[in-house]
Amino acid sequence: MVLSEAVLADPVALTRALCDIPSVSWNEAEICDAVEAALKPLGHLTTERVGNTLIARTELGRDKRVMLAGHLDTVPVNDNFPTRTEGDVMWGLGTSDMKSGTALALWIAATVTDPKFDLSFAFYDCEEIEAEHNGLNKLAKTRPELLAADFAILLEPTYGLVEAGCQGTMRARVTLRGKRAHSARSWKGENAIHRAAPVLERLNAYEAREVEVNGCAYHEGLNAVFIDGGVAGNVIPDECRVEVNYRFAPDRDEAAAEAHVREVFDGFEVEITDSAPSCRPGLDRPEAAEFVAAAGGEFRAKLGWTDVARFATLGIPAVNFGPGDPNLAHKQDERVEIPRILSCADALRAYVEAP
Amino acid sequence: MVLSEAVLADPVALTRALCDIPSVSWNEAEICDAVEAALKPLGHLTTERVGNTLIARTELGRDKRVMLAGHLDTVPVNDNFPTRTEGDVMWGLGTSDMKSGTALALWIAATVTDPKFDLSFAFYDCEEIEAEHNGLNKLAKTRPELLAADFAILLEPTYGLVEAGCQGTMRARVTLRGKRAHSARSWKGENAIHRAAPVLERLNAYEAREVEVNGCAYHEGLNAVFIDGGVAGNVIPDECRVEVNYRFAPDRDEAAAEAHVREVFDGFEVEITDSAPSCRPGLDRPEAAEFVAAAGGEFRAKLGWTDVARFATLGIPAVNFGPGDPNLAHKQDERVEIPRILSCADALRAYVEAP
Repeated sequence: MVLSEAVLADPVALTRALCDIPSVSWNEAEICDAVEAALKPLGHLTTERVGNTLIARTELGRDKRVMLAGHLDTVPVNDNFPTRTEGDVMWGLGTSDMKSGTALALWIAATVTDPKFDLSFAFYDCEEIEAEHNGLNKLAKTRPELLAADFAILLEPTYGLVEAGCQGTMRARVTLRGKRAHSARSWKGENAIHRAAPVLERLNAYEAREVEVNGCAYHEGLNAVFIDGGVAGNVIPDECRVEVNYRFAPDRDEAAAEAHVREVFDGFEVEITDSAPSCRPGLDRPEAAEFVAAAGGEFRAKLGWTDVARFATLGIPAVNFGPGDPNLAHKQDERVEIPRILSCADALRAYVEAP
Repeated sequence: MVLSEAVLADPVALTRALCDIPSVSWNEAEICDAVEAALKPLGHLTTERVGNTLIARTELGRDKRVMLAGHLDTVPVNDNFPTRTEGDVMWGLGTSDMKSGTALALWIAATVTDPKFDLSFAFYDCEEIEAEHNGLNKLAKTRPELLAADFAILLEPTYGLVEAGCQGTMRARVTLRGKRAHSARSWKGENAIHRAAPVLERLNAYEAREVEVNGCAYHEGLNAVFIDGGVAGNVIPDECRVEVNYRFAPDRDEAAAEAHVREVFDGFEVEITDSAPSCRPGLDRPEAAEFVAAAGGEFRAKLGWTDVARFATLGIPAVNFGPGDPNLAHKQDERVEIPRILSCADALRAYVEAP
């Protein structure tokens, strides 16, 4: 599939073209080839391909560098490929999550030759599967210099609203231990499930913080997401496990989040099982504030975790901004409103073009 | 396998002979054939076979009738078949659970022709598997007249001590409900796992009854045996289940036990999932008291559940009494002490023989 100059100049046609190249995770070679073929010949860009991730950059010597990023893969086809367009709505796999956003980054890359900032673009693979395969995650670990920027915009679906930063997420396992015995002689054992009562009491009593960072209101949460224990119907159980999920605002890093979880469950056996960092919104930086202004002035905190945190680990503040409706991601009836593609395109262009 | 007159007259030889007929559950035809062939010709007994369960009875017109019962099956072979005897110890599958006990019932049946009470004998199949297949359970439901008696002795292993009655056992599920939400916006949901806290608190605060019935001290217990809940690591769970096991003394029937469980968890959603009745020790009956005296005068409450409760459902008090060590049941190194077979044999014979 060749992306013609005419398609590259039209965000809607480009969204449709990208959606109509199948690219379920692990199968991004064809779409990455198409993106590389479109950008490599352009004089204002340098490109570097790493696997099925393509990085393109301007080298104009501007004071600031802004990154636009989007993943190339989709979740599996669910009787929603290729696209079809009815009136103002384009239906199909990837229309919301996130080829309409990725198309905007590609459109800016192909058409804005004299931007206000130096621009970097990341088109990456394997976002919809385990984090270890995520192209952006791998690059952040192995080639961080390719991601260097002062500010990043991840074009994930936000329905055209700037969603700044993201909360971190940590999972911890609280293990209660006891002693097995036959339940007909229960006093000879120690019931580990009963010992979970004060753990659950602490969760019930927990008051989650609400924190403002750069004008964004974050709302934390600490919750049990799993509980299990038990050996057999006639045995006093010797172990019970409560898995909790702590969603933490970007004023806390992972170390502070872990310290907090351990403090809440002081006196209990706690193991951190999984963790992903928060990302500061960075709206105190001029290049971020300018983007918010270009996007209409409104913004809110991103509460869910997204790949913006990959940038956070490199010290780069980042926001989410894309035309798709996040509630339609991964749904069979995924779709995008064409006017929203166009309004997001206008905002991005206004932001990156020289005044 | 033919059980000779000499073998039938010797409780130790008879234990060995029964153990050396393989009879893992579902494979009791051969051993039941052998028992039937031994008892059917005897003039003082009538016999009736139902599947692989054999009932034998004297019809002497005595005032009282006493039942001796034992199951014919074993758990699967575990490199412990056939028996071997070293000094005073007979090793092998079934030696403790419960062919040494079953052999005593068969020995009494074959050799005591003029007992003090009318005697009934039940040799039954499928005790070591699901209760629905249990030969005694099936007979209690379909042919209860065959089990009629004033008192029953189940020859399960008790190491020669009278263990009277048994506690009942009931399982109930307490279900907590909530509302799912993404854990990044946990306040939009209602956490069902957190709602288990007061259930576990009630279990922690629970004071189990200690009850004396006919001089037997029973000790109840109410315990969580399973807990589970959770949907995914990023979802506020909408359901949590706590399964509790109530072991109840024989002064409570199943209806009273259920009422108690529902009272303890008043205000919660409770479902009774499984129940087996208690069995009163019945030691206030002369025929039971005489047996305790014959067995040495000592007795204690049976806390675990056994098939004596099958008799309880027919209104028949029952005790457990057998030469095996209950702690060796289902173990690879199952064994029985020959002197204990003999002392139990003496006690039984003294009990059933005319003075």
